[in-house]
Amino acid sequence: MVNTKRSYAIIGTGAIGGLYGARLQQAGHEVHFLLHSDYDHVCKYGISVKSVDGDIMLPRVNAYADAKDMPKCDVVMVSLKTTNNHLLADILPHVTKKDGIVLLMQNGLGEEEKISAICPDACIIGGLAFICSNKVGPGSINHIDFGHVHIAEFNSQYLAAGITDNLKAIESDFTESGTKIEALEDLTYARWRKLVWNIPFNGLTVLLGATTDRLMADKSSAMIAEELMEEVVAGAAGFEREIGRRFIDTMLDYTRKMKPYKPSMLLDYEHGKMMEIEAIYSNPIQAATSRGVDMPTTKMLYRSLCFLQSTCNNCVADTANKSAH
Amino acid sequence: MVNTKRSYAIIGTGAIGGLYGARLQQAGHEVHFLLHSDYDHVCKYGISVKSVDGDIMLPRVNAYADAKDMPKCDVVMVSLKTTNNHLLADILPHVTKKDGIVLLMQNGLGEEEKISAICPDACIIGGLAFICSNKVGPGSINHIDFGHVHIAEFNSQYLAAGITDNLKAIESDFTESGTKIEALEDLTYARWRKLVWNIPFNGLTVLLGATTDRLMADKSSAMIAEELMEEVVAGAAGFEREIGRRFIDTMLDYTRKMKPYKPSMLLDYEHGKMMEIEAIYSNPIQAATSRGVDMPTTKMLYRSLCFLQSTCNNCVADTANKSAH
Repeated sequence: MVNTKRSYAIIGTGAIGGLYGARLQQAGHEVHFLLHSDYDHVCKYGISVKSVDGDIMLPRVNAYADAKDMPKCDVVMVSLKTTNNHLLADILPHVTKKDGIVLLMQNGLGEEEKISAICPDACIIGGLAFICSNKVGPGSINHIDFGHVHIAEFNSQYLAAGITDNLKAIESDFTESGTKIEALEDLTYARWRKLVWNIPFNGLTVLLGATTDRLMADKSSAMIAEELMEEVVAGAAGFEREIGRRFIDTMLDYTRKMKPYKPSMLLDYEHGKMMEIEAIYSNPIQAATSRGVDMPTTKMLYRSLCFLQSTCNNCVADTANKSAH
Repeated sequence: MVNTKRSYAIIGTGAIGGLYGARLQQAGHEVHFLLHSDYDHVCKYGISVKSVDGDIMLPRVNAYADAKDMPKCDVVMVSLKTTNNHLLADILPHVTKKDGIVLLMQNGLGEEEKISAICPDACIIGGLAFICSNKVGPGSINHIDFGHVHIAEFNSQYLAAGITDNLKAIESDFTESGTKIEALEDLTYARWRKLVWNIPFNGLTVLLGATTDRLMADKSSAMIAEELMEEVVAGAAGFEREIGRRFIDTMLDYTRKMKPYKPSMLLDYEHGKMMEIEAIYSNPIQAATSRGVDMPTTKMLYRSLCFLQSTCNNCVADTANKSAH
């Protein structure tokens, strides 16, 4: 019997790629995992996922150390950290079908443009994972909380692409594999909206060395967070996307009530890993500037993070292996 | 023989007040020192100054633990840290003569206004010390480098007061006592000009945990410093004072060539002492705002420092005992 389900390539088998990839394989898709340091271990023992939504054990998976050895797949899910996106120019041509789908499941803004330059004929879909998930060992993932995904199709003119057939296809596959997913009409809106939280709290937790609860408990740092959110909303407005004041208040309130939390950037910094500074800060600042919107507080935070990154002695380039998006 | 020289009260006998006060006493002035924790020691052993410009030993000085016990003096030099300026409303009325002089030898901006409210009839002179000096023990000061002083008379309308007789009197006393001093016509200009260095480097060394050389060696932090300097220049322009681009370049260049340096605020933070956040940040931001000038990068730095100050467990109010202005 021929498998008529869409085949998936998982580029970056970490906290995100490992979880969603394992679910897709369990649901009957042909899945091909690209690995780096975990390759030998996963060849021998497969992938194991501990998840609040149900554990998964896959003793055998299609594992690869080199994209050249992978087959071209219907859908290529990129779940590397954005700091490794410079590798994609060498990887994607090997695994992406002409007119295939590239699903960029990453933080930040402006990375779809780069994928579009590498795979000009592919359909590019942006994915936003709202999840707490960690890689806790080679091929071993611990999904702690949340886990839903938003997807929207990329449009090079920053127009809303609408709910396309490709989008519906991914939505259907993820839903069947047990992941809550929502297809959105407008990627630009979705990405800026997620930045309203990511821009203040990823960077400020690093710069001020404090978890989210402590930032919200202090009047001054809470004011910085609010100021940063206002700049993100202004940036979005530069692209004619109205996020609205109410969303800022909702996010502030939500963060105030949240349990003490370390965003992915703080974990990266604490573990001496590269922070996703370009995707989360530099790209949005540049995009806003291109529309005549200044983000001075964000710029100050961005430059401070660049300083901390460059003076962090033990920071090294790494593959995605720990995430809390 | 009656001492016809001006009498001085030194409010805050630390790195600055101890040094200049000792020189004035050595030059023949009647000097009265207000002390806090060092009172007993100084009563017994006096004041000793180790200085690049010549050591001074004063076995006997007029020491006071309470301003109520002090005589009214011709000149009252305030050399407390600005974080203790809330004490001045109780101190100054005891030591200031009607139509006397108050010399405010402090960092930052906007503190003369408060003195003026306490002593409405006094002549208020702002003093800016360019000096590396530390209090190294009770009544014991180590003057390491620099040491010149700028003075200018306060004007409540922020006009240039010019070179007044009172200014000349202080200039003459300090010069005779061995301190290089320059009388300036315009206090507003002088204070904003000093902020061009103090605003970036006091705060950034604390926030980024780095000495001045490391901040200048990194492109991103050097850009923050420059941005902050530009905001200070814009703030000064709000008061119709033109500092000019060239001064920024000079200050950046000067700092790049300077030996690794820890500004007073970093020393305060490292020693768990209150930082001079209000005088160096809050007051200038408010002053600029009152003239329609926004200082967003400075605001971000200010609020970050407020957060660090309020979450610094061992920070306590203290009297001025260590300075590197």
